[in-house]
Amino acid sequence: MCMGKEIVSRERLLQALRDEVPEHRFRHTLGVMEAAVRLAERYGADPAKAEMAAILHDIAKYWPVERLRAAVQASAFPQDVLAYDAELWHGPVAAEVARTRFGVTDEDVLNAIRYHTTGRPGMSVLEKVVCLADYIEPGRQFPGVDEIRRLAEADLDAALAKALGGTIAYLISRGMRVYPLTLLAYNDLIGATAARDKEGGG
Amino acid sequence: MCMGKEIVSRERLLQALRDEVPEHRFRHTLGVMEAAVRLAERYGADPAKAEMAAILHDIAKYWPVERLRAAVQASAFPQDVLAYDAELWHGPVAAEVARTRFGVTDEDVLNAIRYHTTGRPGMSVLEKVVCLADYIEPGRQFPGVDEIRRLAEADLDAALAKALGGTIAYLISRGMRVYPLTLLAYNDLIGATAARDKEGGG
Repeated sequence: MCMGKEIVSRERLLQALRDEVPEHRFRHTLGVMEAAVRLAERYGADPAKAEMAAILHDIAKYWPVERLRAAVQASAFPQDVLAYDAELWHGPVAAEVARTRFGVTDEDVLNAIRYHTTGRPGMSVLEKVVCLADYIEPGRQFPGVDEIRRLAEADLDAALAKALGGTIAYLISRGMRVYPLTLLAYNDLIGATAARDKEGGG
Repeated sequence: MCMGKEIVSRERLLQALRDEVPEHRFRHTLGVMEAAVRLAERYGADPAKAEMAAILHDIAKYWPVERLRAAVQASAFPQDVLAYDAELWHGPVAAEVARTRFGVTDEDVLNAIRYHTTGRPGMSVLEKVVCLADYIEPGRQFPGVDEIRRLAEADLDAALAKALGGTIAYLISRGMRVYPLTLLAYNDLIGATAARDKEGGG
């Protein structure tokens, strides 16, 4: 694994993950791996990269919040994320773990891990695949997930726009603030979908 | 009217509005005037300024879209709004009409007109009052309006956050893009509400 070069084996990564997260989160990660590989094959991303990003995407999810905060501060991630929900922070931190602890150097893999919690405008196919897989892995159950699963068979951008839009609407329904990068990602995906529909329509 | 100095009478403004908008929009504007004056009295903005901004807020709403586009382009308003729903454009254009045709110079009145369609972070009390009045004037009927009306009695920020949040959620439910300034306004109001709740709670 790791882009053909066996820096860290799949098994060692999975073992490291087992030591960092509870069992239900480990099972969630196996589901994200499965969904990410399938989406990568469907939409032309590298399945091995999708699998590696999936294994590592939640590796920092159970760090104490102050450790996460310090790690975000030490990273190059936009620091404004620290003014928003701490649930967003484990993505950028996991990318740093992947890079420094496991020697991952592929920027696309790192970005797929880094932006899986927030999205961003101009996401690569790999980034979209990992972010969407996190929403639709077989263990996920939330209102609307089946519609997103259906969309994911046919239209990566539309499915991810629906998923991110659902997150934004959920946060608003709870009276919570929304990280602006997530809205920019949503707008970007809606724009891409609309432009393609227009092209398809003549 | 116009900040004590009778540049343009209330009656002349209302007559000008009558010539620019259909009857149902004129009636809507009378409702916004009533609500804006009441909110201004409740939250300490100048009722005369609230009334003037209310009279003029929709004066460009029925301009043809290309005329609106040209007027936004000629204004200092953030030009990225032109990449979003044309429904947003009549606010910034109405502010230019107020300034150039009716001699309104008060920046707070101009901003209340200018940002009534989008909101923005750091809105003044007058801006909030006019924006919220546009949502809750007596003629408005949409799901959730009564809850916003109730909130408006007690908490200007919470009511406007609920109104803008509802707009964002509605746009997302329709698969439409959301102007980022509106999300920033929503986040800002939620932050203000949360900070005050925290203060109140000790």
